Amino acid sequence: MRDTGEYMTRVGVVGATGYAGAELVRILSGHPDVELTILTSRQYAGIRFDEIYPSMAGSVKLTCSRFSIDVLCDMADIVFMALPHKLPMAFVPDLVRQGKKVIDLSADFRFKDASIYESVYQPHTAKDFIERAVYGLCEIYHDKIKNAGLIGNPGCYPTSVLLPLVPLLNNNFLNINTIIADSKSGASGAGRSTSLATHFCEVNESVRAYKVAAHRHGPEIEEVLTRESGEPVKITFVPHLVPMTRGMQTTIYADLIKNVGPEEILDCLSLFYSDSPFVRIRSNDFPPDTSHVRGTNYCDIGFKIDKRNNRLILMSAIDNLVKGAAGQAVQNMNIMLGLDETAGIFNVPFPV
Amino acid sequence: MRDTGEYMTRVGVVGATGYAGAELVRILSGHPDVELTILTSRQYAGIRFDEIYPSMAGSVKLTCSRFSIDVLCDMADIVFMALPHKLPMAFVPDLVRQGKKVIDLSADFRFKDASIYESVYQPHTAKDFIERAVYGLCEIYHDKIKNAGLIGNPGCYPTSVLLPLVPLLNNNFLNINTIIADSKSGASGAGRSTSLATHFCEVNESVRAYKVAAHRHGPEIEEVLTRESGEPVKITFVPHLVPMTRGMQTTIYADLIKNVGPEEILDCLSLFYSDSPFVRIRSNDFPPDTSHVRGTNYCDIGFKIDKRNNRLILMSAIDNLVKGAAGQAVQNMNIMLGLDETAGIFNVPFPV
Amino acid sequence: MRDTGEYMTRVGVVGATGYAGAELVRILSGHPDVELTILTSRQYAGIRFDEIYPSMAGSVKLTCSRFSIDVLCDMADIVFMALPHKLPMAFVPDLVRQGKKVIDLSADFRFKDASIYESVYQPHTAKDFIERAVYGLCEIYHDKIKNAGLIGNPGCYPTSVLLPLVPLLNNNFLNINTIIADSKSGASGAGRSTSLATHFCEVNESVRAYKVAAHRHGPEIEEVLTRESGEPVKITFVPHLVPMTRGMQTTIYADLIKNVGPEEILDCLSLFYSDSPFVRIRSNDFPPDTSHVRGTNYCDIGFKIDKRNNRLILMSAIDNLVKGAAGQAVQNMNIMLGLDETAGIFNVPFPV
Amino acid sequence: MRDTGEYMTRVGVVGATGYAGAELVRILSGHPDVELTILTSRQYAGIRFDEIYPSMAGSVKLTCSRFSIDVLCDMADIVFMALPHKLPMAFVPDLVRQGKKVIDLSADFRFKDASIYESVYQPHTAKDFIERAVYGLCEIYHDKIKNAGLIGNPGCYPTSVLLPLVPLLNNNFLNINTIIADSKSGASGAGRSTSLATHFCEVNESVRAYKVAAHRHGPEIEEVLTRESGEPVKITFVPHLVPMTRGMQTTIYADLIKNVGPEEILDCLSLFYSDSPFVRIRSNDFPPDTSHVRGTNYCDIGFKIDKRNNRLILMSAIDNLVKGAAGQAVQNMNIMLGLDETAGIFNVPFPV
Repeated sequence: MRDTGEYMTRVGVVGATGYAGAELVRILSGHPDVELTILTSRQYAGIRFDEIYPSMAGSVKLTCSRFSIDVLCDMADIVFMALPHKLPMAFVPDLVRQGKKVIDLSADFRFKDASIYESVYQPHTAKDFIERAVYGLCEIYHDKIKNAGLIGNPGCYPTSVLLPLVPLLNNNFLNINTIIADSKSGASGAGRSTSLATHFCEVNESVRAYKVAAHRHGPEIEEVLTRESGEPVKITFVPHLVPMTRGMQTTIYADLIKNVGPEEILDCLSLFYSDSPFVRIRSNDFPPDTSHVRGTNYCDIGFKIDKRNNRLILMSAIDNLVKGAAGQAVQNMNIMLGLDETAGIFNVPFPV
Repeated sequence: MRDTGEYMTRVGVVGATGYAGAELVRILSGHPDVELTILTSRQYAGIRFDEIYPSMAGSVKLTCSRFSIDVLCDMADIVFMALPHKLPMAFVPDLVRQGKKVIDLSADFRFKDASIYESVYQPHTAKDFIERAVYGLCEIYHDKIKNAGLIGNPGCYPTSVLLPLVPLLNNNFLNINTIIADSKSGASGAGRSTSLATHFCEVNESVRAYKVAAHRHGPEIEEVLTRESGEPVKITFVPHLVPMTRGMQTTIYADLIKNVGPEEILDCLSLFYSDSPFVRIRSNDFPPDTSHVRGTNYCDIGFKIDKRNNRLILMSAIDNLVKGAAGQAVQNMNIMLGLDETAGIFNVPFPV
Repeated sequence: MRDTGEYMTRVGVVGATGYAGAELVRILSGHPDVELTILTSRQYAGIRFDEIYPSMAGSVKLTCSRFSIDVLCDMADIVFMALPHKLPMAFVPDLVRQGKKVIDLSADFRFKDASIYESVYQPHTAKDFIERAVYGLCEIYHDKIKNAGLIGNPGCYPTSVLLPLVPLLNNNFLNINTIIADSKSGASGAGRSTSLATHFCEVNESVRAYKVAAHRHGPEIEEVLTRESGEPVKITFVPHLVPMTRGMQTTIYADLIKNVGPEEILDCLSLFYSDSPFVRIRSNDFPPDTSHVRGTNYCDIGFKIDKRNNRLILMSAIDNLVKGAAGQAVQNMNIMLGLDETAGIFNVPFPV
Repeated sequence: MRDTGEYMTRVGVVGATGYAGAELVRILSGHPDVELTILTSRQYAGIRFDEIYPSMAGSVKLTCSRFSIDVLCDMADIVFMALPHKLPMAFVPDLVRQGKKVIDLSADFRFKDASIYESVYQPHTAKDFIERAVYGLCEIYHDKIKNAGLIGNPGCYPTSVLLPLVPLLNNNFLNINTIIADSKSGASGAGRSTSLATHFCEVNESVRAYKVAAHRHGPEIEEVLTRESGEPVKITFVPHLVPMTRGMQTTIYADLIKNVGPEEILDCLSLFYSDSPFVRIRSNDFPPDTSHVRGTNYCDIGFKIDKRNNRLILMSAIDNLVKGAAGQAVQNMNIMLGLDETAGIFNVPFPV
């Protein structure tokens, strides 16, 4: 509760000290309509959050606590789970049963088809809850999110691939057998855990593909595309690591099946996103640039038709930690609570 | 005027398309208590601001106009000048005479002694106004700023050097003949104008000193230190360029003249800044880090005593475009208008 | 002439102070079998080269001179042209007529079909020489290069796209209507001229596509692919700018028309490049990484079959200034002179 | 043994897979006068070196082996130790006793006074060998190195601080009580081990001091300065971490005790280093820049007198992995073997 007598929704973050968790803490501690009441961390229980993230000294006064369903249920009305895959499915059912709204940033509740989940992750131990969960891609599933009690918050790559594609698939513009997504991600997407792959000297001055056509976000993307197009979609998805901290740029290639011009593409995208405060359709002169969305919840979308091949090139840019994770999670919360969709997640972007 | 009937102070930015100007636009367009009404740009007159800075599409709808005193006076109550040195002194007198409050980000009104200005810049053509101007180092000259009509907004290096030093000088802790400041700045400090020195390939993987003991911010620092200590101070100041966009880290060395311990230093700094929302005194475990203040108006200060030499090491970190330029300028405005000092310039810092 | 009585081939670099020119100077000044005798620069005539590139102090003692055909012909047996497009075609004919071997790094002599050149660049004023010129993609046109007097040195993007593709096209593995190349380049590819697009603050923390399906290297790639496949090939080519100095990573997508497995792809590539000291075929565990080829003349090639779509994913990594420009130019010289192909351009790659 | 019948000195690298070790492998595998015969690695025994460093595929064919004194003695005439501090002192005595020349890159044999070593590291278990060891700062101790059997290879910070200072101390130009060294290092100095401090996202866009006046290289620097000046020297040394991979820039401040001008400083430095191929004295127009020495064994030195304070500002730039570690180690070997001092470690620097 802040300085008024009014009741404020209390929120907790489980796994608050990873990068996605800390980004949630950043956003939620500045959110005008909720109160951040509890942060949990296995590794840092008992330590003040701002000793782990000194940048937030003066903004966040909470101390990390050990995870406990009971304490969490006591302290929070809404729970954000920012844990590695597999852990949430062990705890989420209890939270939901106790009437808590849950927004899970892992993959555990993103899939409708448990067998797909199991083929790329591990056995699912809370299949009953898969059905109740809503895939929290806010601009596409806004109405379902409004009434959801459990959100499977989308992965960063899926967000960057799906937002440009869905409107065009819905309108049957694309040959679904020709979809290729080439993504470039900053290093924060790999999380805060140390590994050689994220050592400064291994990322700096390096661009490389990884998990080529084998990344677990591929099936996540395909399940949504299949649902949206009504036909089984198999895409080719190749992620790349580039030397920056935040940001994800995706270029998507697909054959057009209609003979359409740029105006029709522009209309399709503009209309689809006319009520979406966080999607900006860019003109050809400004292809989406990760630096334009850094630190914001925007998804910028651009496109170009390669006329000679009648192929559509779609481009998107997001901040992987915001629209690709914590920002979208809070956007989901805003929708669930009936708040202004932009509450706490709108800030004027930096010029550089 | 926004959505209420209430009158909002109207502000204009002259030179809005340089990096400092654009950072002013970012902050002012999100400021709750003022209305951004006019942006001027020689180079981009007639062009929408968000075509020059696409990141701000959706946030800033203004079109840049050519500079005109009359139009400016019509449109704005407060004017921020973000022009190269020398230009402001030609226009500021007119604006002040017409009752406008002016915050000038150039060096033109930072010096009390015109001869020092002239020895490092050029002849000063508005000397009468030097006296009226207040040096806008908010934490030090808060009371004078309150009543000022014209602010000489401090340089980025002076801000990073003076905030740690002034409390200790005021308390006579330091041998003023031994002060050395070694600063490291990101490339945005050089502005948006293109030059080989800021070409990506010349900055990346490079650290170098420049204008060694010859930078124009040296005399600016010294004039303030001399005023604060009551004795002529001559420091050795060496700026360095490092491969990052935003941020300035300064390490200052000075011999202690008292036999003091860390508690006394800590007390001196903490007491001095006890009412300053944007200064954070860090413990030894967390030396100031530019990444902790990125995108914020904070100045983080840390210190260490080198006992064997009885020498004090002071460290500071700021974002050169915020506390080192636009943020401090808005902080000055807030103080002048009697607003909350943090209005429009407080945001929870990013975790990374 | 160095310390032996033996005659050494004398080489000159025209346009020595751009990044590609300076990289030529670096390589040639350390080359064991040639003597660097003349450097020309419009902008820096009369200035020592190592004042423009202080890194090379101690290695390069030449002073830049103004361009003059006569002086050049006097001083050099082989001339490297590192000028902007359009300039070389004015001078190259004279040099060739005087018996000089010329390696031109611009686009002027890369095309066999002048009309394609003219559709993307400008009118060609030396069409007679187009026929004599050999496209200097060393691994593909080795035999023609041996006897060439004039080399059109390939662009960086074409090098990174063609080396992986040609062997597979030659073997009819690919559906030529489905070829997509997604390239990521470091900022040195844009050259040393200053522009906002290469300002450190505009490149850092930014990934963006540019000249989407409209880059002039597209037609250069297509002319070669068409020649190699015997059928007109139209690809979709999208370059991206990433925040690093050197390096280019390209991911290529194409449908397989044969039902082939990874062994056949590996065999095809390995066999094709079995005599090529600068091409390394990587296993799936190590996708080509720009950091692995930084500062070297290597082109690393990797691949993965996306079985579900029967689509081949090819990946390459080069240093855009070496294999993508100056290194390949010297490799061409080595072949023309009958030297060891690796002379002066082999160095053990850096670990980081 | 290469292709001639001539005997080549055989060298081994212990701890070959850390960054300093791998840099040794890079240099030694291209060295014309020695043969790299054995690489050891605890972590990667049994694995080909080029699987750990794929950049070196084609250049290095050795497989890492487990450390064994006997095998090492069988295989190598000279042993480079690139292990963490403390380990070498357990093995070096045996190697030396068996007549092997040893160049140790750790701190174990850098100190003449074991008690200083013990006060900053740990108990020393091979004190007898301290006396025999020569501190391998090549330009200063060239003559002793020639006849040495055991080299304590200097730390990166000491190299960057000592090379500029020693000539001036030798000439009694400086007040030894006023020496301050402010160093900025790239992240490779922290080694290849993963840690949060070297995570890309923690280094990128960050500058910070660390181990302020408490770094273990401080006493190493002081022992040499004390020896060279004949009086006890206590300096203030502050290292900083900056966002780049390779490179170290140091700015040193010291009061002049003589009334000297820039010519005398220049003469002093130039004369001292007149026979040193790897030291370049820069003019004031080109302060030492890490990008000018990247990938080379150079140490660039510049200076400026701050006349008003009669204070000398010295600046140096090295590549911390080359002159600051592996390059200097090989330079030591060259001197010990009577080879050309630059053999295998000279390459023309990159323009960018």
